[in-house]
Parts: sequence; C-alpha cells; structure tokens
Amino acid sequence: MIQTSLPSSIDRRLFLRQLSVGAIGLIGVSSRCGSSLAADASRLLVHSKAPMNAEPPLTDLVKSWVTPVESFFIRSHGNTPEINADSFHLSVEGLVERPLTLTLAELGRFEQHAVTATLTCAGNRRSEHSRLKAVKGVQWREGAIGNAKWRGARLSDLLKKAGLRDSAKHVWFEGLDTVEDGGKSFSFGGSIPLEKALLDRENNPGAILATTMNDKPLTADHGFPVRTVVPGYIGARSVKWLSKIVVSDRPSPNHFVADVYKLVDEGTLLEVAENGPIYRMPLNSAICTPTTGTALKADRVEVVGYALPPGVPGVSIRKVEVSGDSGRSWTEAKLTSPASEFCWQLWSAEIAATSATKELIVRATDSRGDMQPESVRWNAKGYLFNAWHHVPVN
Amino acid sequence: MIQTSLPSSIDRRLFLRQLSVGAIGLIGVSSRCGSSLAADASRLLVHSKAPMNAEPPLTDLVKSWVTPVESFFIRSHGNTPEINADSFHLSVEGLVERPLTLTLAELGRFEQHAVTATLTCAGNRRSEHSRLKAVKGVQWREGAIGNAKWRGARLSDLLKKAGLRDSAKHVWFEGLDTVEDGGKSFSFGGSIPLEKALLDRENNPGAILATTMNDKPLTADHGFPVRTVVPGYIGARSVKWLSKIVVSDRPSPNHFVADVYKLVDEGTLLEVAENGPIYRMPLNSAICTPTTGTALKADRVEVVGYALPPGVPGVSIRKVEVSGDSGRSWTEAKLTSPASEFCWQLWSAEIAATSATKELIVRATDSRGDMQPESVRWNAKGYLFNAWHHVPVN
Repeated sequence: MIQTSLPSSIDRRLFLRQLSVGAIGLIGVSSRCGSSLAADASRLLVHSKAPMNAEPPLTDLVKSWVTPVESFFIRSHGNTPEINADSFHLSVEGLVERPLTLTLAELGRFEQHAVTATLTCAGNRRSEHSRLKAVKGVQWREGAIGNAKWRGARLSDLLKKAGLRDSAKHVWFEGLDTVEDGGKSFSFGGSIPLEKALLDRENNPGAILATTMNDKPLTADHGFPVRTVVPGYIGARSVKWLSKIVVSDRPSPNHFVADVYKLVDEGTLLEVAENGPIYRMPLNSAICTPTTGTALKADRVEVVGYALPPGVPGVSIRKVEVSGDSGRSWTEAKLTSPASEFCWQLWSAEIAATSATKELIVRATDSRGDMQPESVRWNAKGYLFNAWHHVPVN
Repeated sequence: MIQTSLPSSIDRRLFLRQLSVGAIGLIGVSSRCGSSLAADASRLLVHSKAPMNAEPPLTDLVKSWVTPVESFFIRSHGNTPEINADSFHLSVEGLVERPLTLTLAELGRFEQHAVTATLTCAGNRRSEHSRLKAVKGVQWREGAIGNAKWRGARLSDLLKKAGLRDSAKHVWFEGLDTVEDGGKSFSFGGSIPLEKALLDRENNPGAILATTMNDKPLTADHGFPVRTVVPGYIGARSVKWLSKIVVSDRPSPNHFVADVYKLVDEGTLLEVAENGPIYRMPLNSAICTPTTGTALKADRVEVVGYALPPGVPGVSIRKVEVSGDSGRSWTEAKLTSPASEFCWQLWSAEIAATSATKELIVRATDSRGDMQPESVRWNAKGYLFNAWHHVPVN
C-alpha cells in the first residue's frame, strides 16, 4: 500500500534513499499499555524507532473523520517511557496558592470533558520544504495529522483548584520522557499562554488533561497515562506522559519552547532569540486519494482529502477547491464532516480529468476568507508548510 | 503644500474630520534643546501635540536620502521631557557583573560609532488600515519614516564593560518620559534580544546609544540627550530619553513590549498573550510624488518614492516597480540611493501616463526575491501596513 502511494520519481528516490539508510520502514506493530508501539492492525510509515516517529499512509487517513489510534501519527523526541499507573503523580506548582499532587484516581474525580480535536506536527509536510532545500528533522509527508476524541479533566479546573497568583501568565507542561540533545538529558516540555489555558469557549476548553483517546486509555505512544491536549495549537504543545504543570509569569525555558519550535529563515541564533514560539497551526489542506502517481482511468475522478482550519477561535473551513488543470479552473469540494474550529474538515470532489491532467491541486479557504497560500517560503526548520498541495498523477 | 497633497475625497474627508476634532494641524514650530517642538524651517503634519506626534508631507520626505531633522517624523507616547544634561545619568543594571552609572561625559569616552539607519513607526500607513475598518491610534499616512545619521557608543561596548552574566538573554531600555495609560503612570520601555544587541556585522552595530542626529545634538523631540537606535527594528525599540538599560533573561514586561506592539487580528487578550513582540519592519514602499490627486499634465510622468528593506541582516532592496495601468504593466524604477540593509532606498521612475491612468502603484522586491504583498489583512492595532501603495491621480 505504501509502495503504490509512492510511484513518482521524486518520491521514489526519497523513499529508496531513506530505506537505504535504515531511517524508514514498514512495520506491523504490536500494542499494549506500556508498549512503545502502536496497534497490530496498523501499518505505519516509520521514520525512526528511537525516538518513535511514524505516520499513516494517506489513503488510511481519510477513511474516517475520527482517526483510529492505529492510524494516528506518532511523534516523539525521546524514549517512550513505561509508566506505572499506580504510582503515577501529576503535580501543579509555580505561581499558585496551593500546589497539588494528584494521583490518577484524584485526576479522575475532576469533571471529565470530552473534546474532539485534530493534532498536527508543526513539521507536517516538511518533506515538501526539503524538495526546495534539504531541512533536517523527520521528513514528514502529509500524514503527521490526526483527529481524535480526547477525554479528561479541564486544565482550567486544576488551575482553579490550585489558585492562580496575580502574576500568572503562562502554563508549562513537562513530560516523563528523556530527550538527549547537545550532550544534555532533559524532559520534553511545552508551554501555553494562561488565557488559552483558561479558555472555555462554548464549553470547549482551551486544554484538557486527556487520559483516553477514542474512548480507550491512551497507548504508551500517545502519552499514557496522561497527556495535555491543546486544540488548535501545534502538537508539540500537547505534551505526552505529562508529570508536571508549572504556572509562571513567562513561557517555559524548555528547549522545545525556547529554541526548537520557532519559525526562522536561516536558523541563526539571533533569529531564534528574537522570534516567539509557534502556537497555532496555519490553514492547510491535502489530497489523500488518489495518491501520487495513480493512473487515472475514468474521466471523472473522485478526490478526497483533509483541510485544517487555522486554530483561531471561531474560524472554520469555508471552502475547499480542487483543480485538475494546473489551477486554470477549480471545482468546489463537498465538505463531508462537521465544520469545526479545532478539527480537520474532510472533503471530496468529483473532477473532470483528461489526458492533459498531470497533477491534482487542492486549496482551502477559511471562514474569514483567507486562502491557503499558493507557495510558502522555505524556512530553516521546515515548519508550517501549507502551500497548495499538488499530487502528480498519470 | 499639505493641502495640495490631500485632494482626493477620501483623504479630504479624513483631513477635515481630524481638523474638526482638533487632532491635526499645521504648525511652524520653534526648536531649541529642551523644546518639545521641532525646527522652524519645518512644516509638519501634527496628529497630536500631547503626546507629540507629527509627520512630514511626502514631497519633503524624498528630497534627500538623509532626512533633515526638521522633516523627521516625531513619535511620542507621553510628555517630551526637558532634561538637564549636566545631571543626567544612564544606568546599566540587571544580569551584569558590574552595574554602571554613566554621565554624558563618560558615555562620550566610549568609542563613538556613526550609523545611518532608517527608523519607522510600526503604525506607518495605519490610515490605510483604517480605510478597511477604523483602527485606534495615530492615523499615520506614509510619512512616519525617516533616515538619519546617528552617532554614539555601541550598546555592545557598554554591555561588555558591565560584564554579562550567563543567563542574560534580552536587553531592556527605559525612557525618562511619563506615559499615562489605564490610570497608571510609567515610562516608555523597549526590549531587544541580546544577540541583536551584540551584533556587529561589518562594523554595523546591532544598536547604538545615539547622542547626535545628522551631526547635531539630538533635539528634545528625538530623545535628547541619549536615545537607543536599533537599525532594522520598529522605531518603538529605539527608546528616546534613555535613562536605564536592564539586562534580563526575558523580554521587558513594559506595557509597550508586553502588550502594545504586537500583531493581533482582533485584539483579544488571548491573542496579545500568545503573540510575541514585533521587532522587525517588513518590506515596504511608497510613492511620494506625484501626490494624491495630482493632475498629470505630461504623458511621461516622473514618480519618486522610498522603499524599505525588511530589517533582515544582509537583505536589501533589489527592485522597485511602478505601474500606471492598474498593475497590467510595470516599469522598473531607478534606484537613486545606496543599497543598504537597514536604510531606506530612494527611487525614481519615468512612466507613460494616458487619460486612462487613474492611479499609480508601487511595489518593491528584496534581495531574497520576496515581493511586497498586493494586499494585507487588517489587524486590530493597525501595524505593519505594507501592501502595494496606490496613489489616485487625475
């Protein structure tokens, strides 16, 4: 299935190069709580095993609006910790009146809230940046995105219980994994502004501390026993294996807030210093079927894919358009899932194809009228690639 | 002269409305050290007197590459302090080994460095945002920009003398003015990343502590006796009436860093919390002559204006193009001043005009190949307007 999705010469070369250095492979992986790998039924495209980074084939991705756990991309920066749920504790500290230390059972006694939200790696589609000029990091295709139903306590409820001090402005998250970088060992960390943490828009919390994913306990790959889920923000802010919440007057100094997830042109230290952390994902879309290199047999072709709203409260996808003639004409797609501010929008379109159809193109427009850009400038870390998505076909 | 630059109906209405509320006026103002107003010879368009905010007519702006002091825009947020140079002290404190307190004479004993740099208000061209939807704040036209020769000690030399601690990451500046806002009184403040402060690219310092402007002592309006000048950054980071430099591990908490100079869509507190301070000015250009509403008499028209590079080290203006036929064809302008990374680029073009010429348009391209955007989205604070500049003519 992966092979049939990679017949273009560019993709095939990339695929073979990655295979040859052992950085990519196809696996059927086993799953249990505490396992570092995902469900049996899945076949994921594994970019690296340690840390574990994998994405589903695109055709699997759009089979359902809610992504099955076994088809959900896995993004890790360090090891996949095996955590004993019985001895687990989550602490809430920093600029609070009453620091908390909670067991899983105590966390379960907070009101539980379910939220369906799409998570995306900020580096989704990085491989398209790399076609312009090589970018370091996991060479994600279009599959580092998934939509799931998460359930857990509202972050705001924990913060209210702990009591915020006046100087509180940001909320830090720290995981139980161990990242090795630059000769140091530390945990992965994220941070969000306090106002996002306290958001409760139409009962849609700014963040929850999820213990289930699609109504089952989180797997180890997805952060068992507890992870943060921050709808609308890059996946990196939804910290897995969460062990510590710190309320502060500033963003977290963790490497992954202070240095890594920033948009920089060339990657100079100055740029990193002066640019703020990335929070939101931009408007995006991708064609999932037909896959690259498919030979179109009929003159009417069904095109299916996803579109992602820009992570702004109240803004959803208004329109998705597909072109089979290099952008000269556009067919408006049918939106096949609920409109939502923090979930992806699945869509399908039937377009006319001729022998001149060499590629399919998609572009999305949000409810403010903003359209996805036709092209984006290369950036040194390969983040937020959201140009119109092109799929070469035969 | 101002009147002839404002004959279009939109501009005339705006002009009359502002006159009627007393917010704008034409003055010939007197100048001396300690005065709150600029030189006699100048006729500035004054948006407000307390605080003092004024900009030159566009035709005056492009008479020379270095802008005379009397034609240089004045941007203030509070009073214009009258400072006794004899008792003045500048302190350097925070995360340093040896805090400093320097008199003007002591500041003069540091090696003096001259740098020609363009300063621009982040709200330059805000009035164009307001045509889309009203934005609060000074309704700047295209004149809140000027290029001057500044001279003073390098900020980096002061920091080296004070000795930086390992945790140093940002440098704060604080003025001697008093800003009244939200029932509080405080000084204007700015902040830049340490690496910008330490930059010394081809002997071009990241920031200097200027005591002269165009080889004369600063006037009170421009920050006498000392102001910061940070080439490439918005004017707000070049703090006037500088009295205190604080080295810190984070950006300044001053209202003008933490809240004001941020790019936000709607201006919600959440957006302000999650967005970082603006540092750089984006690529921009404007037509200065002919002015709005000019009756074109010849079929060859000379068009003159400025273009501003994007404040990125090493990036200058590559190309400026002018159109007299609504963007169907473009004439490349002659660049009439030195190419520079942190100074504006003056240009002139001779274009064919016909009876169908209803407007002139300019757009600039930088040395990376990035072009100024055709349109920009409205933002709640009216910052960084840099769409193609249109001038209606008859």
